[in-house]
Formats: sequence, structure tokens, C-alpha cells
Amino acid sequence: MSKWVYSFGGGNAEGRADMKSLLGGKGANLAEMSAIGLPVPPGFTITTEVCTYFYDNDRSYPDDLEAQMTSALAQIEDLVGAKFGDPENPLLISVRSGARASMPGMMDTVLNLGLNDETVEGLAKNAGDRRFAYDSYRRFIQMFSDVVLGVDHHNFEEILDLAKEDRGYMLDTELTAEDWAQVIDDYKAKVLEQTGEPFPQTPKDQAWASVGAVFGSWMNQRAITYRRLHDIPADWGTAVNLQAMVFGNMGEDCATGVAFTRNPSTGENAFYGEYLVNAQGEDVVAGIRTPQNLTVHGKEMNGSKLPAMEEVMPEVFGQLNDVRLTLEKHYKEMQDIEFTVQRGTLYMLQTRNGKRTAPAAIKIAADMVAEGLIGETEALRRIDPNALDQLLHPTLDPQAERNVIARGLPASPGAASGKIVFTADKAEAQAAEGETVVLCRTETSPEDIHGMHAAAGILTTRGGMTSHAAVVARGMGRACVAGAGELRIDHKSGVMRVRDLELREGDLITLDGSTGEVMAGAVATVQPELSGDFATIMEWADKHRTLGVRVNCDTPQEAEVAVKFGCEGIGLCRTEHMFFDAQRIIAMREMILADSSEQRRRALDKLLPFQRDDFIALFKEMAGRPVTIRLLDPPLHEFLPHEDAAVAEVAEASGMAEDQVRARALKLAESNPMLGHRGCRLGITYPEIYEMQARAIFEAVAAVEKETGKTVVPEVMIPLVSVEQEFTAMRRLVDEVAAKVREAEGVEIQYLVGTMIELPRACLRAAQIAEEAEFFSFGTNDLTQTAFGLSRDDAGSFLGAYEQGGVIEQDPFISLDTEGVGELMRMGADRGRQTRPDIKLGICGEHGGDPASIAFCQTVPLDYVSCSPYRVPIARLAAAQAALNRKNA
Amino acid sequence: MSKWVYSFGGGNAEGRADMKSLLGGKGANLAEMSAIGLPVPPGFTITTEVCTYFYDNDRSYPDDLEAQMTSALAQIEDLVGAKFGDPENPLLISVRSGARASMPGMMDTVLNLGLNDETVEGLAKNAGDRRFAYDSYRRFIQMFSDVVLGVDHHNFEEILDLAKEDRGYMLDTELTAEDWAQVIDDYKAKVLEQTGEPFPQTPKDQAWASVGAVFGSWMNQRAITYRRLHDIPADWGTAVNLQAMVFGNMGEDCATGVAFTRNPSTGENAFYGEYLVNAQGEDVVAGIRTPQNLTVHGKEMNGSKLPAMEEVMPEVFGQLNDVRLTLEKHYKEMQDIEFTVQRGTLYMLQTRNGKRTAPAAIKIAADMVAEGLIGETEALRRIDPNALDQLLHPTLDPQAERNVIARGLPASPGAASGKIVFTADKAEAQAAEGETVVLCRTETSPEDIHGMHAAAGILTTRGGMTSHAAVVARGMGRACVAGAGELRIDHKSGVMRVRDLELREGDLITLDGSTGEVMAGAVATVQPELSGDFATIMEWADKHRTLGVRVNCDTPQEAEVAVKFGCEGIGLCRTEHMFFDAQRIIAMREMILADSSEQRRRALDKLLPFQRDDFIALFKEMAGRPVTIRLLDPPLHEFLPHEDAAVAEVAEASGMAEDQVRARALKLAESNPMLGHRGCRLGITYPEIYEMQARAIFEAVAAVEKETGKTVVPEVMIPLVSVEQEFTAMRRLVDEVAAKVREAEGVEIQYLVGTMIELPRACLRAAQIAEEAEFFSFGTNDLTQTAFGLSRDDAGSFLGAYEQGGVIEQDPFISLDTEGVGELMRMGADRGRQTRPDIKLGICGEHGGDPASIAFCQTVPLDYVSCSPYRVPIARLAAAQAALNRKNA
Repeated sequence: MSKWVYSFGGGNAEGRADMKSLLGGKGANLAEMSAIGLPVPPGFTITTEVCTYFYDNDRSYPDDLEAQMTSALAQIEDLVGAKFGDPENPLLISVRSGARASMPGMMDTVLNLGLNDETVEGLAKNAGDRRFAYDSYRRFIQMFSDVVLGVDHHNFEEILDLAKEDRGYMLDTELTAEDWAQVIDDYKAKVLEQTGEPFPQTPKDQAWASVGAVFGSWMNQRAITYRRLHDIPADWGTAVNLQAMVFGNMGEDCATGVAFTRNPSTGENAFYGEYLVNAQGEDVVAGIRTPQNLTVHGKEMNGSKLPAMEEVMPEVFGQLNDVRLTLEKHYKEMQDIEFTVQRGTLYMLQTRNGKRTAPAAIKIAADMVAEGLIGETEALRRIDPNALDQLLHPTLDPQAERNVIARGLPASPGAASGKIVFTADKAEAQAAEGETVVLCRTETSPEDIHGMHAAAGILTTRGGMTSHAAVVARGMGRACVAGAGELRIDHKSGVMRVRDLELREGDLITLDGSTGEVMAGAVATVQPELSGDFATIMEWADKHRTLGVRVNCDTPQEAEVAVKFGCEGIGLCRTEHMFFDAQRIIAMREMILADSSEQRRRALDKLLPFQRDDFIALFKEMAGRPVTIRLLDPPLHEFLPHEDAAVAEVAEASGMAEDQVRARALKLAESNPMLGHRGCRLGITYPEIYEMQARAIFEAVAAVEKETGKTVVPEVMIPLVSVEQEFTAMRRLVDEVAAKVREAEGVEIQYLVGTMIELPRACLRAAQIAEEAEFFSFGTNDLTQTAFGLSRDDAGSFLGAYEQGGVIEQDPFISLDTEGVGELMRMGADRGRQTRPDIKLGICGEHGGDPASIAFCQTVPLDYVSCSPYRVPIARLAAAQAALNRKNA
Repeated sequence: MSKWVYSFGGGNAEGRADMKSLLGGKGANLAEMSAIGLPVPPGFTITTEVCTYFYDNDRSYPDDLEAQMTSALAQIEDLVGAKFGDPENPLLISVRSGARASMPGMMDTVLNLGLNDETVEGLAKNAGDRRFAYDSYRRFIQMFSDVVLGVDHHNFEEILDLAKEDRGYMLDTELTAEDWAQVIDDYKAKVLEQTGEPFPQTPKDQAWASVGAVFGSWMNQRAITYRRLHDIPADWGTAVNLQAMVFGNMGEDCATGVAFTRNPSTGENAFYGEYLVNAQGEDVVAGIRTPQNLTVHGKEMNGSKLPAMEEVMPEVFGQLNDVRLTLEKHYKEMQDIEFTVQRGTLYMLQTRNGKRTAPAAIKIAADMVAEGLIGETEALRRIDPNALDQLLHPTLDPQAERNVIARGLPASPGAASGKIVFTADKAEAQAAEGETVVLCRTETSPEDIHGMHAAAGILTTRGGMTSHAAVVARGMGRACVAGAGELRIDHKSGVMRVRDLELREGDLITLDGSTGEVMAGAVATVQPELSGDFATIMEWADKHRTLGVRVNCDTPQEAEVAVKFGCEGIGLCRTEHMFFDAQRIIAMREMILADSSEQRRRALDKLLPFQRDDFIALFKEMAGRPVTIRLLDPPLHEFLPHEDAAVAEVAEASGMAEDQVRARALKLAESNPMLGHRGCRLGITYPEIYEMQARAIFEAVAAVEKETGKTVVPEVMIPLVSVEQEFTAMRRLVDEVAAKVREAEGVEIQYLVGTMIELPRACLRAAQIAEEAEFFSFGTNDLTQTAFGLSRDDAGSFLGAYEQGGVIEQDPFISLDTEGVGELMRMGADRGRQTRPDIKLGICGEHGGDPASIAFCQTVPLDYVSCSPYRVPIARLAAAQAALNRKNA
């Protein structure tokens, strides 16, 4: 006989926390809490294997499931002292889904199950409160009808609104027991009308229908899409939890709340949470009433005037605080918990690892190591490298003037300035056009996710720290100020008002998600400070990682930032950016417009000193760290003027007629510039360009060595090689220039010559290219473009449809396509190493700063990754995680 | 002791014909002729191993070479009865290079070696002719100085011209012995002046210097370049042949000549050659005197009045004709021979396989099978498939006069004469009136297709061998000269200029697409003949090949040609070409300009009947042969109007403002259209387009089946798949349409759905794509573009420099890059077959008609190749050769 049902409660449990794949996350943790003696309402979990059975057998259940459920239900009845369906003393239960990983899109919760026209009277009698009983019944009908029967909730909201209107009420709390009884009749009539069946009165039928609805929702479209996007196999299935109800809304000695065992925003080791007296959990989440703080410390921090739970229910709070300490010691992780107080008794309804901001993640990880709860490697594993991004960007300049117009909750840290938009669609549209926007809403819902993602910051006028807006913004790393109640948004007229101030769409606004301040206009920002816990974590990361981390940068200024962020060298210096400077672009254009190689050389001679000075500055800034310099890569026409004024300027400087300039520019235009006359193709056709660049590099090496006495070893990178002969020809040219400079300057010059592997053919021919190439740097931007036959510039018009339609899981320009592009890289690396075992291998595409891509690079393995300056710390941590995972794999 | 020297002569030889790698082609054949008893002047060959030794040992010779040469020389002296350097009876020799493969760029020949101031007198006495002896000596000085000492021949020509001028002579023959003696003195003085050394007088020194010059020329720049371009390894080395001189210029009983054992132009089995009485070989080649025919038949054929050798020297001719028959029987191949008659005695100086025209190659191969000399497979091997191209198109009458005004690339073979038109519309209009026109454009675009079709030939002033004009013209079998840069078309004034010549619309012009020549006026043409031997060879090819041969074609007209040429199906029908028709382009543009999928569907409904009719006609023409139809592939903006008039037309038809039309066209423009919104990306974003096309296909299937009662099995091809999910989605769409049509029409519909494998990622993911794809067709045009990161349209600006610089051996768009693109194909084929062993594999890029690429396809192996109609016979033969080579490999 298979075991389909696992009971918990009364200080015992058949399950454990590590049985998540069988019991789901929620069920496993309920069992664990129960087993370690925490006060969990008794219940049982129907395993994920039942879900699998359900779909393997045409949506039917195992024969012996019913008997096991009956027996588990009897255990609950015994522990609670009530009976399911007993009109006198009815047991009420909740039904909740619980997959291995939290999964939006699935049926969530049915509360108060077991109520019917008879048992509601028993509840009324036992609770001594008819109004409470009827309110519970109508909530049950509403919830059950919505999620199990598919009767949309607006049907019920209409009835309730009408009921209030008829009676001249403003709030739900004004409805009396009799009013609710009437509403219940109307609700049941609506169900009959919509479904053709009366609302089910048998508790057992209600239970089976709810269980079926949970399993059924595993295969609804939203859940399927979510699983595909998150790579969750369909055969994992979901579990279902049935648990005795406890009520936080039975009176003033009742409460419900959510809490974090540490501050999820700052990481401070202080109990942090919110509660509401006489409320059900959904009331906290819905943000209708403003929740109160758990602790006096929290109350002070948030400047709240409402009393803390610590003050109102000191005894129960003490129990809750003990639970907090027990959980942290037990799980060795910050927990996110839900609790209910029913008539002075504490019940734990959920515990799970808590989401946190990046600063909090760092502080918690560092603190827990200091507290001896976890080790360094575990600390490293716990921080999402992508989340560090929040820390690496500027915050508001404390010196800057601020015109604070309102205050809300500091719901997600960081600062954001941008134009006001009032809808998610507008946010997305404007962001697509390059605008920085702040999304301002009364409150947010899952339908706003795309707009929240597109926005730099999110402002809501309603809701708390655990409101939808706050939770989602923290997850995305967007600045968020929530519940700024002084602000009023008038959606119809597109105006946000505070006192006599009117802000309209397009007006500038600034949020400080760390303080909750809302400011009119744009406010100056300052660079982040990266010491303390951050520095400690980075030190640990460096100790454990095996991949080097370099930076893609072109200027000494960027190099300075990158060195501060801990880069170990430059992986990609794009020399072309150096030519866009106003002084140089004219000589550059002269060079391009030249008719002969002699004329071209003359123009290049003008560019040489500029470029040499660039390299001198860069080499000095990098102080002996390796510097990979890519010779000119983009099509020449990119440098040419397009607008009339610019054409005139060039014509004047070069002594050509404007028409000539235009004609030459036209001649250089290409059908597919990405696949055109660029990269080493320029070096082959106009060798004098690469000669000048090589000379600038080696003369800079000589100058810096003479000045500092230290060796500089540049790595000269030939771009866009597809045929080994291209590399051979360009390497010969570089070697010749090096020999000449060596002789002229009388200094030893060491250097490497390598290539960017950025074309599929280069991966295939890596063994041959490595005959003469001393390093490879995978240029995964272009490699992705060519492997997919996909122009990054043009993909916008259809890649969105691809992601939405599930054709691709994610933009391959953001996270490396390991199946296709990755195989090419592996091939290139293996073949290159076959020829030259000590060949240096790196990556310098955008992917070099993407944690998932870095994890792949570790498996190739590469020697280093190179990324933009602000992603260097992210790469260091991601590399450490990749090394740790690899070691354990 | 190594054997460095191989002797031949006197009816014996140490070498054989199959020792070409040791003795070179010339040496091996001289040995062979000697061994089979033909009259070869005695001599010896210094092996290619000496050349290798020479370069491996700092340009020195093996110690024992001299002894072996001395001994071989003694053998010649014995056989000839003269001594090298003997003033009384001097032996004279020739020195000739001879590599394995004939190789231009190397030192060729030194004649009369052994002459000096003393031996010339001995020669005079023995020949009884002082003038002859001095003439021989001055020829030797001139040749030796030029090729061995590096004194340019113009130095000597000047001296000779002066000598004639001084004496009032017109011809060399007017110079007397004394005159030549004076010239010789002047020659020697010039050598001293130029080299600082007197002309070498010791025959042995002369010989060693000549041998050294031959070996030295193996490494000169021209030879190195030639070897690189023709893939000849440097370590093959060259041999050197030293051979007793015989003289065709000792009097009227002497002669020299070259001949082919059969007519190299027609293939006729008739002795064919030319000779000159009293001349040396160089005189025949130099064309100073008009050579005479060997045979009376030849004389009559060429309308010559000069007596044939058959008449002048019947006896020697009889011997020569016997040699001819012996050689053909021995080599079983048509031979190209050189001979000299010295005082009535015949000497053979060379034999090798003779080059021939395509018609001759076919006739000779067929005849030799009939004669029992060779078998079918050998006959097939002997014909160069590329040469067939000449036979499949009208050609210029070789007798007609030509006024060549410009040259471009031979972009599509065949000849065409007609009236000049400058626009596609004009071409169509004039053709409709029965005019034969040549469309002249700066370059062509898809909008010109109808005009290209209507024209007899296409001339462009810009673009390469793979430009739009070239590709389309080859597909249509239209003659095309592309990139004739000397021509300037002034569209405004309707004039085409070259130098001071102005050509206007209506003027006659002639193109030779096989040579790239552009001629003013009309030149007569002749039509190809495809029966007889040609048909026989094709039959044999079909018997031996294992690769199928399909055609890339879009119209019933092309299909008809292709069927006549023996295609077995359509490998690529590009549906987009069907939309450029004047009637349809407006509906097409409406479709593209549509704002909603509903509007788009309305426009597509208009296109449906057109497309269905196209397929009906195509299916009927192909009469049950498989037809692979590619769904819409190019970016939509290709269909949009660019010129003002066209914009206005569309605006009127669609009811949009002109500005709207322009704006929409601008919005559709892409940075890199090749990598943009095209192929199945169109099908994913606008499924209604592919739905219409699938419907047209299946409704056409139903219609044809109903009408003919025969089954039609279309192969629906999804283009540009890079991700397996793309294929899955599009296959589902096609299947759904098929099911609907099946139901509506009440007929069974069979079909395959497959994809074009044209992106590197598709090759990598072939195993996954093959889960649902029933066939793959390798689109090697785009695969080459993406593997190399090389736009075919833009490569023109640098690919020339690449080929010249030896960076690439040949344009990868013409012959498949087997190392890179080929490896991707192999990967795709292997992985596809792993998933689906019976998957159909083909190729439909331009490479499908290239013999070298076809040979590669045989090794993958693919099931079929598909090429343009006029290349079908070429592909059939190339496939046969590939199969035969594969069998022997």
C-alpha cells in the first residue's frame, strides 16, 4: 500500500522539511514545525505522487486515498475536538496548494471549508458570535466559488457593494449578522445562476472538489507557462495541504500577521513584521487596513503611531519571539512566517526562507557566519549575485536639495528619478523608447508586473511593506515607496495630487526606496560605498572562485571604477570608442575618406599620438594588470557623419566637397554591416590602420615601462577572425611593428597576440587558429548573433513575441544560450586547448557579467570572464558560486 | 645510395608514366614513350627528391648527384654519338622543368645548351650551315640569359631590332651568318654589362646553372601563389629534364609541330595539329609564321591553302600517325603531343593528356567507350562537369565579329543580344511586344524580377558573382554580366556611357555571360544541342550516381526546363518570387501595410487564389515528382515600394496616405535584414501568412489529385529555424491547415514538413529539430553567411583582396567551405539521422550545383542536391563522379 497522506500536528509529524519533493514546500515545513514542537494547527498533506497519479490516470485518484484521508481527518478531529460536518461542533479546514517551488498561477487557498447552512449555526454558537460565523460562511462561498467553481469574484463584489449601498454603509464591518445572512442567500443564488447547480452543502464534497481544483490548476495555462519559463518539470506535481482552521478574526484577543525573523530590508538582526488585530490573513495582504508593527523598535523605525504587538499582546508576542529564535536556530536561515492568534493562542501557519534585499542578504549572510550559524561557503551561496546590482548603483546625494512632497514606506531600497506614468502599459511603452519612468499606482496587482519591470521605481499610495508592490519591487531590485497615503491619484484626469500640488504624466519625480521619501523633480545621486560586510563577502568570493574577473572598459575613468570593484585586468578595451572624441573624429574621418593608403597613413599619423596617450593612461591605471586591446572592429562608415551639419564640418576639415563626403559615406554603407567590412577584414584591406594601433600600443608600453620601471604585457586582440589565415596575417603585422618599436625604443617588449572568437567558423577552426593565437576571448554577443542568425538591433520586433509564446525561454543576448552558443564555445575551447594546452581563454561579451552564463563558463572551463565595470562584483560572487557548485557537482 | 637520376632513350627507360610524383609529368611521359619504343631523343630526369633535398639543405645538392648526372650524360653521348663540350662534335641539350602538375610561374625551358664560342663552330661544321649554328647560339644566349641569369629579354630584342634596322632588314630570316655573329657579340656584351660577368662558356657550368634556375623557380613568388591557389604542396618539388637537342630548323627536310590525337574542339576522331617546316618549337607557339595543318582533312576543315604535312612529308607523317595510334592505345586518352623532324627523322618531345572543349570532351568520352578503349565509369570521370555549362546555353557564333566595349564578371553563362532597356517595367512591356531586350541596371532588386524574366540578358554595373542579378539570372538561365564597372548608367537621361561611347534605350547590345564581355551591336548566336553523346553520358551518370538531383525553381516555365534537363523533383520553390507579379504585389503590399491581423487576413485572402494556382501549375508540371515549398522567407520590407511612383501606386490602392506608406516602410527597415525579421520569424509573429500559404498548397494538392487522379506529396519547408520550438509551432500550424483542407475537400492529403537548416544553431540542435522535422534541406548560402559572419551582399568590398592575398582559396559562396560550413552540415546530418534514421537530407543553396560541393555532399552523405535549372545536368554528372570516387576511396 502506498502512503498518499502525511499527517502533522500535536507536536508530531510524519513528514520532514527535506521531503519537499513529496510534500511540497508548505507541507514539508508545516510538518517540520510540528515535529520540533511549534504550535501548528493539525492537518495533513496529500503528496505530489497523488498529483502524478491523477494525471497518469485520467484525472482519477488512487483507490486507497479516500481511506487514508478519512483516517488523517479523524486525527485532526481528535486533536481539535471537533467533527467535520458536525452541525453542533463543526471542524473547519483550509485547503492550500503547495508545490516544491512556489508557483504563481496555481490555485492558492480555500478557507473555512466545512461550512454550510447547518454548520454555520454550530460555528456561531461555539464562537458566540453569529456575525463572525456568517462573515466566515460568506467568505467561504466567495472563495470556493471563485477558485473551485470558476465563478468570478466580481459577481460577489457587486452583491456586497449593492448590500452596502442599500443600507447606506461605507465599510464591510458595518454589516450585521442579518445583513450577512441576506448576502449569503444572494451569493448562493448567484452560484446557482452561474453554474446551474446549488452551492455544495456536503463538507466532504467541498473537500474533494477543492483537492481536485488544486490538482487541476497544476495544468492550467498560466501554471504551464510559468513552469516552462522556470524550467520546472510537469511531473513534479503539487501537494495539497488540508489543515484545521484557526481564526484571527474572532475578536480583540485575536490577530493575524506576517513576520521576518530579521529585517528583510536592512538585514538587521531584529524581529520584523506586521499584524492586524481581529483580522484574517487576507486582510493583511489586501492592504485595506494599515497593518501595525510587531515590535516597538519596528514601530519607531517606521514612524508609526499605532501600537506594536509587543505592547498590545506582550505574552503572545513573547511566544512568537521564541518561535522566531527556534526557527532560525533550526533552519539556519532567515524565515518568513505567518501566524494567527486565536483567542490568545498562537498558531504558526507557515514558515519559509525569507526573501530579502541585497543589502539585507549581505548583512544576514555575514552576520550568520559571525554568529556561527553558517560557514563562508554557505554565506556565499545565499546571495543572489544579480541582486548586488542594487548596491552598485548610485543613491541620492545627501547634499542635494530635495523637495519632499510625501512619505511612504521604504519598501525597496535604492533611488530612482524618472517621468511619471500611471499605467503599466505606458511604463513599458515609454521605457521601450528609452525613457526612465516611475510607475505611480494606487496599488499594484500581478497584471502590472511588466510595467514594474520597465520602470526605474514604483510608487503606491496604498499598502504596506508586504503589499504586492513592495514584495515584487524588492524581488526585481526596483526602488519602491509603498503606501504614500498623502498622494491621491486621479486616473481619469491623469493627475497625482498632494495638497495643492498637481503632478501630471511626464513630470519628473524621485523616490528614495530606502527612506520612503517622494520628491518632486530629479535629485542628484552619489556612488555607493562598498566596504564592511560587502567587502567581507567579496573577500570570501575571491577566496573560493577559480575564474578570473576582468572588465570591459575603454577609459582610465572606467578602469578606476573597475579596479575599485576588484577587477583583475581588462578583458576588452574597444579602441574604436577612443576615436569618437570631438578632436579625433575629424582625423578619423579624414582617414576613412582617404583615397590612397598614403593619404590614409597621413591621417593615421595624426591619430597615433592620441591613441598612444590613451594606452599610456590605461596601462598606468591598471598598474601591471593584463590589458586586452581589441584592434579596430566596427565598419568604417559608423564613424562617418550623417547629418548635414556634420557632413559640412568634415567637408571643411578634409577639403572635400560635401557631395563627395556624402558619396563616400554612401559607398561605405552596407546591407548587413554586422556581417560586413569590419573586424580583421579592415586590417587585411587597410593594414596601415592596425599598424598604427599596434604602434600606439607598443610605444605606450615602452613609455610606461620607462616611466614606472614596471613591465606591461598588453594582449593584442584581432577581432572577427573566421579563417586561420586572417589571424596569421594580422599576427605577422603586429609582430613586425613590435620588432620595430623594440628596436627604436631600445626596450624589451612582451605581449600576447590572440583573437576574439565570435563567429561559428572560428569555433570550428579553433585548433588551427590556436597554432598562432596565444589567447581566445569569446565574443558571445556576435557569436549569439551569428549562431542564431539574429541581429541584436533588429530582434526587438519579434523577440518579445518569442518570449511570450514560450518559443524561447529568455533573450539569448542576456543569458547565454548554453545549448547552442555554449556548445560552440565548448568546441572552440576544447580545440584551442588541444593545439595549445596553456592557451588563455576568456569571455568578453555581455554574458560575462550574467551569473547563469558565468556558471556555464566555469564548466567549459574558461580562465576568466570580463564584464562591464558595475558588474564586476556580481561576477566575482557568481564565479565563487559557480566554483562551489562545480566542486559539489 | 639514392637514385637521383633516371635515364631514357634508345628504346629503354628507367622511369614509367606512373612515376609522375618522382619524375614530374613531362619526365614520366618521356620515359614511358621511350620504353614503348617511340623515337624520343635520349635524356635523363633529375628527380623531385633532389628539389626537396635542395631546399632542405640550404640550396645545395646531394653529393652523389654529380656522378649520376655524369654517367647519364655519357649514356646520351653514346646514343647520340656526340660529346658535351666537344668543339668538333658537340652534344647540345635542352633543360626543362617538369612538376607533377603543370605549373605556370616556373622556369620553363633552355634550349641549345652546350653551345659556346668554340662548339658553335663544331655545330656549324656538322650541320653544314654556319647561319643555323649562329642562330642557334644567339637563341641560346638570349634564353639562358633571360631565364637563368635574369637579364630581361627586351635587352636582346633591342639589339636584334637595331641590327635589322642598320641593315634595312624586315625579317629575322634575312640575317646572314655574319650578321648573327655580330649580334652574338653584342648579346655577350650586354650580358657582361647587366650581370658584371661574361656569358658562361663552360657547358657543364651552363647545365648546373640551368638546373639551379629550375629548382630556384619552384620558390619564386608566382609559383608559390599558384601553388597556394591550387592547393599544391610545396614539398612536391619539381623535376628537371635534360635531353639531347634535335633540330626542326636545319633545313627543308626538318619540321616541328604540335598535335592532338583527336580534334580538341569537336572531339572528332581525326588527327589534328599544326607544323612548320624548318622551324623550332617556339616559332609555332610565337605565331610569327602561319602554321600548316597536319592532315588534308584538317586543311580542308580550316579552309587553309598551305600544304598539309600529309602531302609534304608523307612518310614521316605516316610514322607520326602510327605514333598517334600507339599513344591512344597505350594511354587510352586523347594526347597532346610535340614532335620535331630533324632531317627526315621523327622525334617525339612530349605527350600529355590533351585539354579539350566541353563538346569534345563528351564526344571523345562517348567514342572511346564505343571503341572499347575505356569503360563508362572512366568516361564519366573524364568530363569536367563545370564545362557542361557551355553546352546548355546559346553561345556566340565563334565566326561572328565582336565589338567589345566593356568587361564584367561572367555571372550567368550564355549569350544574349537585344535592345537596351533600363527598367524592369520597360523590359516586360517590350518583351510583351515581341522585342528581345537586355535589361541594364546599376544593380537589381527583387522588384526587377519580372523584368529580368522578360529579358534575354541582364547587365549590371555593380555587384559580384553572388549579387542578386547573378543569382537570379543563373536560376532563370538568363545570360548575365555583372559588375561591369566601366559602364555608367545615367538613369535620368536614359544613357549608358563607356568612355566616349553613348548607348541609349533601344540600341542593340550583346552579352557573353560565359566570358563577361559586353559588345555593342548584335552578335549572332548558336543554340545548344543536347541529344546524342550528351544524352548518353547523362544516362551513364544517372546509372552511377547515388545522390538525387532536384531543381531550385519557382515557376512552371523553369520547371519545364528542369524536367527536360533531368531533375527528379523540386528541392526549393521560393514562394516569395510569386508575389512580385504586377497583379499581386499590390495585395502583398496591402498585407504588409495592414495594422491588424484581420486586415492582414483580408489581403491574404486576395493572394490565396494566385498562390494556389501557382502551385497547381507547378504540381502538374512536376507530374508526381516531389516538390519542396519554402514558406515566405525574406523580410517584409523587401516587398515595399522605394521609388516615389511606386509609393503613390500603393497609397492609392490601399487608401493610405503616401506619408503613411513611407513611414511604415521605414519602420520595417532593418539594420541587418539578413539577421532580422524573416523566415519562420514571420510565421511566428504573423501566423496568418503561413496559414494562407499552407492552405494554398493543400488546396492545390486536392485540386490536382481530383483532376489527374495522381497523388501529390508536397514537402512544406519552414525556413530559418534556429530553435526547435519554432519548428514545432510552425509544424502544428501546417498540420492544422492540412486537417481543415482534408475535411473541406474530402480528399486524403499526404505531405512532409521539414526545415531549411541554414543557421549554425540549427546544425547544433538538429537532433532536437528532427524530433518533428521529416526532412532537412541545408541552405548553405545563409549557413555560409552566418558561419563566416559574412554578408554576401557586402563581401564584394574585401573578398577580392582576400582571394588575391591568399587568405581564402575561393569564394565560399561559390564552392562550399568544407572545413567550416561542411563540418556544420555533417554535424546537422549526423544528429538529424540519430533522431530520425530515415530523415531526408538535401542541399538547396547555390552550392547544390557546384561539382566540388556535390563531391562533399556525397561524403556527408546527403540524399539529394538541388540546383538551378541550367545546372541540373552538371549536378547529375558531378554526382556520378562523386559516387565513383567515393566507391574507390
